[in-house]
Amino acid sequence: MTVTTPAGFRAAGVACGLKSSGGLDLALVVNTGPLDSAAAVFTSNRAQANPIIWSRQAIADGRARAIVLNSGGANCFTGHQGFQTTHATAEAVAEQLSVGAGEVLVCSTGLIGEQLDRERLLAGVAAAAEALTDDGGADAARAIMTTDSVPKTAEHRDDAGWSIGGIAKGAGMLAPGLATMLVVITTDAALDSAALDRSLREATRLSFDRLDSDGCMSTNDQVTLMASGASGVTPDEHDFTLALVDVCMSLALQLQRDAEGASHDIQIHVRGAASEDDAVEVGRSVARNNLFKAAIFGNDPNWGRVLAAIGTTQAAFDPYDVDVTMNGVRVCTAGGPDRPRDEVDLSPRVVTLEIDLKSGSEAAMILTNDLTHDYVHENSAYSS
Amino acid sequence: MTVTTPAGFRAAGVACGLKSSGGLDLALVVNTGPLDSAAAVFTSNRAQANPIIWSRQAIADGRARAIVLNSGGANCFTGHQGFQTTHATAEAVAEQLSVGAGEVLVCSTGLIGEQLDRERLLAGVAAAAEALTDDGGADAARAIMTTDSVPKTAEHRDDAGWSIGGIAKGAGMLAPGLATMLVVITTDAALDSAALDRSLREATRLSFDRLDSDGCMSTNDQVTLMASGASGVTPDEHDFTLALVDVCMSLALQLQRDAEGASHDIQIHVRGAASEDDAVEVGRSVARNNLFKAAIFGNDPNWGRVLAAIGTTQAAFDPYDVDVTMNGVRVCTAGGPDRPRDEVDLSPRVVTLEIDLKSGSEAAMILTNDLTHDYVHENSAYSS
Repeated sequence: MTVTTPAGFRAAGVACGLKSSGGLDLALVVNTGPLDSAAAVFTSNRAQANPIIWSRQAIADGRARAIVLNSGGANCFTGHQGFQTTHATAEAVAEQLSVGAGEVLVCSTGLIGEQLDRERLLAGVAAAAEALTDDGGADAARAIMTTDSVPKTAEHRDDAGWSIGGIAKGAGMLAPGLATMLVVITTDAALDSAALDRSLREATRLSFDRLDSDGCMSTNDQVTLMASGASGVTPDEHDFTLALVDVCMSLALQLQRDAEGASHDIQIHVRGAASEDDAVEVGRSVARNNLFKAAIFGNDPNWGRVLAAIGTTQAAFDPYDVDVTMNGVRVCTAGGPDRPRDEVDLSPRVVTLEIDLKSGSEAAMILTNDLTHDYVHENSAYSS
Repeated sequence: MTVTTPAGFRAAGVACGLKSSGGLDLALVVNTGPLDSAAAVFTSNRAQANPIIWSRQAIADGRARAIVLNSGGANCFTGHQGFQTTHATAEAVAEQLSVGAGEVLVCSTGLIGEQLDRERLLAGVAAAAEALTDDGGADAARAIMTTDSVPKTAEHRDDAGWSIGGIAKGAGMLAPGLATMLVVITTDAALDSAALDRSLREATRLSFDRLDSDGCMSTNDQVTLMASGASGVTPDEHDFTLALVDVCMSLALQLQRDAEGASHDIQIHVRGAASEDDAVEVGRSVARNNLFKAAIFGNDPNWGRVLAAIGTTQAAFDPYDVDVTMNGVRVCTAGGPDRPRDEVDLSPRVVTLEIDLKSGSEAAMILTNDLTHDYVHENSAYSS
């Protein structure tokens, strides 16, 4: 269940020395067609890495033959030299595959502000091109890991004969804005780039965009969807979008589960909102509240911090109407105390927080993590 | 150097059993005149504690004879019963002082969502009224402490014969919006409430509003300024405002220094901004970035995280023009690496981060703290 699950894709993951550990650090995914339609969403951070700048241009025509991804360095804030490295990488892939450089997307992840070793990178491209196989997706998933403890993969096999496969990396700086982390999704459905784009934007809006592990938006986020058409089937666009949401949500939950140092996966369900935007704003305000996140780490069902957090938003609601339920126990009714805090069991890894704004019928779920000693440790010790 | 430094004020701090520790937990500050002009700024959190709701009304006429403050409970999200407790407290103070309840302001701080013990509180009011002295300000400063490790006080004695004194409490949930924490400032200058209001808004804008310890805005923040006029001197309003800024900034720096679990006090100087609002937005984005704050805890001069943070703002600048200097070492020039990271010494408690946006001549300073193991520990263990 990876990017080589759909027909029409080959992939590889190799070690070229970018990671000091010697682990796999370069992934290549190639669409062998017959189609080469593609779509991508990118970080909305204005500070954008060189591969983001490149890939935005390369995908403007809705076509891509290959995507090359390296860990071991983000190639962000590395100036002209850094951009040349990205360009040279795309050119090297293009030469290996006998395509144009504009058909090659590039992604990088790792430390910001340091130059990638171009020589090692280009040697890695040659090795990866040679290692391409029909089942190389698992190696590719491992080659894009940084602080990830496990590779993330997902798939959907449709009865109608088409399938979707995906890989993702991400463990910190998880607060995508219209994009996220590094994700490559493939499909053998026969869809043009416009359809892919619509489906991908809908799917990321409902999955990666609802994940806010630590409120910190990356400079390198990119989600890419490539279609080979090798199944010969053109699915109903709505069916395809639903399947894509499923694959993206599976990857998002894997990213949440692997968030650096986290001890709880928190699902914030906001309902009774006047609009979906309001529900997202309210959920995100709680997901970004360090006091609430530290309380969950301490197994403290501190609903006062939830109300203090949502009171900072512009969403439509009356603070004195709100209900708050934690792991099934309604601790706050109409902005006042309800069941005793000690009835709430916060020992399970997954914590469910329900917020009823009593102001409408819209809802949204935001995924986040608790704030732990290990989060502080990993992010004070790891220079990224 | 406290609220009884200016002439025309009496104060007391007593223990009435709201704190389980038995420490001082009720403060009373009384303006003996001849003037009773006053101004206040309140939290902009829409979730507002009962004493905030009361005090907003009570100060609407620009007059106040007394302010009563309790620690040991925030009286927030405690419903009708909680509001009655606040009202009864004001009535009790009014009776003791033979004034109207509308001339009495109320502040509370402590755990959200639990009822205050009204009987103990009212007994405390009687005891405090009896304990009022001309030098009771130090006791008042101690009585408003919660997780504070030290009382916070400040003063300004003007050559022209008037003075300003202040007390403050606050150690967490420090991200005021147009207000902050609990602060009481007194002056014997002869100023009307309109002048006090103008000066106070200017002073809080430049001091407490620039403090963002943990991005979490309280439900109980209130800064109150009371003038007795007992000096008989009406200062130039500009001079008074400058002195007030000085007192407020002193208190803000004391709050920062005492922030829960912090090991560094970070001063973020943003310059070269197109507007002051831009400078504040850029500074605040860094102050709220957990990855940057954890890096500082780890003595890691991680400027990539600074650029990733400011890239999420709407401020006018080109990320590839920005300079970043940490403790005097320019680690980033024009969005790329400059001096090596290891030249930066982050061992001192105070860290200076300079960000030059190269987009104008406006500037602002934001105060924050690092993200530490102790912050997580204190806020996972302390239910507030």
